[in-house]
Amino acid sequence: MLTQEELLAKVNAAIDALVYNAQPDALYEPIRYELSLGGKRIRPVLMLMGYQLFKDDVDKIIPQAIALETYHNFTLLHDDVMDRAEMRRGRPCVHKVWGDNAAILSGDAMLILAYRLMTEQRTSDTQQPHDRHLFSALQTFTEATLGVCEGQQYDIDFEKRSDVSVAEYMEMIRLKTSLLLGCALKMGAQLAGASEADANSLYDFGEKVGLAFQLQDDLLDVYGDPAVFGKKIGGDILCNKKTFMLLSTLQMADESQRRQLDEWLAAESFDPAEKISAVRAIYDAVGIRRVCEEKIESLFAQALNSLDTLSVDADLTGPLRDFAHHLMGRQS
Amino acid sequence: MLTQEELLAKVNAAIDALVYNAQPDALYEPIRYELSLGGKRIRPVLMLMGYQLFKDDVDKIIPQAIALETYHNFTLLHDDVMDRAEMRRGRPCVHKVWGDNAAILSGDAMLILAYRLMTEQRTSDTQQPHDRHLFSALQTFTEATLGVCEGQQYDIDFEKRSDVSVAEYMEMIRLKTSLLLGCALKMGAQLAGASEADANSLYDFGEKVGLAFQLQDDLLDVYGDPAVFGKKIGGDILCNKKTFMLLSTLQMADESQRRQLDEWLAAESFDPAEKISAVRAIYDAVGIRRVCEEKIESLFAQALNSLDTLSVDADLTGPLRDFAHHLMGRQS
Repeated sequence: MLTQEELLAKVNAAIDALVYNAQPDALYEPIRYELSLGGKRIRPVLMLMGYQLFKDDVDKIIPQAIALETYHNFTLLHDDVMDRAEMRRGRPCVHKVWGDNAAILSGDAMLILAYRLMTEQRTSDTQQPHDRHLFSALQTFTEATLGVCEGQQYDIDFEKRSDVSVAEYMEMIRLKTSLLLGCALKMGAQLAGASEADANSLYDFGEKVGLAFQLQDDLLDVYGDPAVFGKKIGGDILCNKKTFMLLSTLQMADESQRRQLDEWLAAESFDPAEKISAVRAIYDAVGIRRVCEEKIESLFAQALNSLDTLSVDADLTGPLRDFAHHLMGRQS
Repeated sequence: MLTQEELLAKVNAAIDALVYNAQPDALYEPIRYELSLGGKRIRPVLMLMGYQLFKDDVDKIIPQAIALETYHNFTLLHDDVMDRAEMRRGRPCVHKVWGDNAAILSGDAMLILAYRLMTEQRTSDTQQPHDRHLFSALQTFTEATLGVCEGQQYDIDFEKRSDVSVAEYMEMIRLKTSLLLGCALKMGAQLAGASEADANSLYDFGEKVGLAFQLQDDLLDVYGDPAVFGKKIGGDILCNKKTFMLLSTLQMADESQRRQLDEWLAAESFDPAEKISAVRAIYDAVGIRRVCEEKIESLFAQALNSLDTLSVDADLTGPLRDFAHHLMGRQS
């Protein structure tokens, strides 16, 4: 069984070799650039970790692992166009370097490349059984990629709506971020020919960890340690972002708290520090921190529990437990 | 064997039912709109015609046929954004109605939907053999869709280059338009479990007909009957479009003809009618009309010849021959 670092090295080597010499340059150069911006490569590594629970020959599914990262980077590329973002990982976004049209077309090609990688076969066995597993993984991939589009659209829709429920928010973040994490693991299992039950348990693990991570991000925006969090505290509050914190508070607030919150949401000019501290005071009053922490704990526990249901030796799931703790910034 | 009209009716019914109730609306409404703009549905019908040469149960591959049309409409949607087009088939383009971001995201979802349709199985047989055929067709689909992106990029590149060769142009139009026609037929054959030789012969037929059609379009822009052509005669000449006519003439022209042509290409203000007639005079002088007509005839003959190599009863290929003649505006 390879370590997470060894898997990451394989993933990065394969990404470096991808479309290395492909022509025309104007189409593939932005793709090479986007892929070279780096990142933690969480999705391909998770897929390989899922596969390793059942089979050892991870090299066979490197194309599928790279497909996930290519797809993920495609979403970043097109999102940057739509958000008019300037920078991505410290370097100018593709559309800032080559223009919108190049970003659109090269992004489209990346999505197709992801599908090409998904259907690439590295096997000398009789192809039939591998085909079947590949086919299941491919359907999981499509479920994930379409779900991410839907999640992205809900996120956009929610900005314009004032009646978003916590349940709708949870479904949006599930689609936009957790689905792909869960599917990465599920696809690894499917490619290894694991049972449907095992594949679904791995999906649940990835989904729940993803949700816990997103809620923790929402929580840290309000109550995080600025030195650790990385982003400025209160950013979500200042831009009225409909996070778990805000939506739950709106749901739990009494009439006077709700009125105060609505006033801050409607305010057009304000002192940023004052808005952050006023909104946080309302959060404190309804006790939202505790609610969010409990939700995170519950999701995290569900994630770890789903590993217990796997049919594999419990020792083998150690790396996934470590991954989950590490992602949440905890000691395992 | 169903007629082309019967196949078209099946295609249109399936397109009407596609993503009918899918949510969120903001994502799927532009998709429904783009698909409702109509069109000849040439690609799905060709796939079904290719399939019918070998098997009768066309209903089984309706999802794959619709995948082709969904993909094709995705390219139109994103091309319209990139070209800043106003209208598509007499109605405002998606990005004019819902904005660029919606056009980008809904387009992305259409491309994924096309892949989802490609992997949809309508069969009650043991799935194994169908899987294998589906898998081959899927790889052909990806070859086509990536090729179309590359062709689109070459087309953009060529606008800025002054040294495009006729061979490069032929490869560009092959990628941009003929590849998908050829692959539509090839996929039909693959899905029916036809031999590789038959699938490739059908590809050749589609590719060659597509190239002949494109060259005829180039020719008619210069020598067509305005009452029949549909577009204004000389449009390509006015915008210096690097068509087969222009590129071949540049290649065949003597020094003085080449100098005249270069002057017209560089001219910034001119009388449109004068430019058209002057360029056409140079075309006449080098005899480009005849060259182009011969090239079209040769491609068309190659297309029909490749049908002769098929292992099926010659009578069965009648509808494809009729299709080719009809596309080129000829009596069969």
